[in-house]
Amino acid sequence: MMSLKLYGYWRSSATYRVRIALNLKGLEYEYVPVHLVKDGGEQHQAAYDSLNPSHLVPTFVDDDEDIILNQSLSIIEYLDERYPEPYSLMPAHAVERARVRGLAQDIACDIQPLANLRVLQSLSNQYELSSDQTNGWCKHWIEKGFDGIERRLQTQAGRFCFDFDVTMADICLVPQVYNAKRFGVDMTRYPLILRIYDNCQALEAFQQAEPENQPDAQ
Amino acid sequence: MMSLKLYGYWRSSATYRVRIALNLKGLEYEYVPVHLVKDGGEQHQAAYDSLNPSHLVPTFVDDDEDIILNQSLSIIEYLDERYPEPYSLMPAHAVERARVRGLAQDIACDIQPLANLRVLQSLSNQYELSSDQTNGWCKHWIEKGFDGIERRLQTQAGRFCFDFDVTMADICLVPQVYNAKRFGVDMTRYPLILRIYDNCQALEAFQQAEPENQPDAQ
Repeated sequence: MMSLKLYGYWRSSATYRVRIALNLKGLEYEYVPVHLVKDGGEQHQAAYDSLNPSHLVPTFVDDDEDIILNQSLSIIEYLDERYPEPYSLMPAHAVERARVRGLAQDIACDIQPLANLRVLQSLSNQYELSSDQTNGWCKHWIEKGFDGIERRLQTQAGRFCFDFDVTMADICLVPQVYNAKRFGVDMTRYPLILRIYDNCQALEAFQQAEPENQPDAQ
Repeated sequence: MMSLKLYGYWRSSATYRVRIALNLKGLEYEYVPVHLVKDGGEQHQAAYDSLNPSHLVPTFVDDDEDIILNQSLSIIEYLDERYPEPYSLMPAHAVERARVRGLAQDIACDIQPLANLRVLQSLSNQYELSSDQTNGWCKHWIEKGFDGIERRLQTQAGRFCFDFDVTMADICLVPQVYNAKRFGVDMTRYPLILRIYDNCQALEAFQQAEPENQPDAQ
């Protein structure tokens, strides 16, 4: 029995982020799929509700320490504080840390929540948007977000978002690029984002976290 | 000339959060209004674009230290690390810190981004939703979010979200309750949230940060 468990969904980009962080830390964990669509969504069922009353993924559990945490960025910072080896995912200086958090939140607050499954379901079911319209909606917010991020990266990027260290910012960027490609965003508009994405994808921790490599991938 | 500047908008709840944090830390700052509606939005003009290429508020500037930061939660954690007095806005223990960040992100990632001005403008301009429909949209996501938060608070709340200390979670909760009231959410459904809101509102730092008390209030 493994003590660390990650409840999530293969294509949830918040779950994808935590998988990358766990892999970068070299932590073994049990991946517990929560199917967000089947039977009206397993995230609404009693078993999951008791872990996460918000009915969102991911949820991180450490059985040995009786810890249940939600919110991907919060989980990633917890993992980084609790398991500092082999290297930190956050810079040592407060201003640089703020920039990493800022970029992570540019994605986790201002892009991803607008284009996730429950929002798209609501737009099509309650407001009768066509699938062309919901795809356009996603593309619009991803492009708006990437326009700002590409410019921010011009002053601070190296091999990764912040110089030559993999940080929480890269952990958020890669799943968002995966989504951008899915929604047909023209990534040639974002050469810096794409270069960092490619540099991350060269690392095994990122490859193994990809949605298509999960047991619940369809 | 004051070194610290906060660029924001009176009714932006992300700006409201940073005002509360600055007040709790007892920091003097210059408040620079960025009108999000007038002339197509001052956030898109060249002067602001050079500070924040995402064209969102708030932006925090420290002229003396040549620091420009965006994203409210990132700014708040920076302020807390840089100015630990008179007390910390984050708990000392990693698990508790993760819970505070998680609750803050329940609001800053899963509620507020869905109901902010640019999203409502897009829903009404591009997708022709009526104002009744956009109000219903806001109410729906606030209620969904508060349903989960009210349950989470049952295991951890005291006078404030986490026991008897004001944390970043309260700083996010209060502006979200302000918005909920604006959109007609029935707050009697959320007795714990309401109690914490009232306890925060008894503090001068929260009162002075209220939208109606800002120079750009309309």
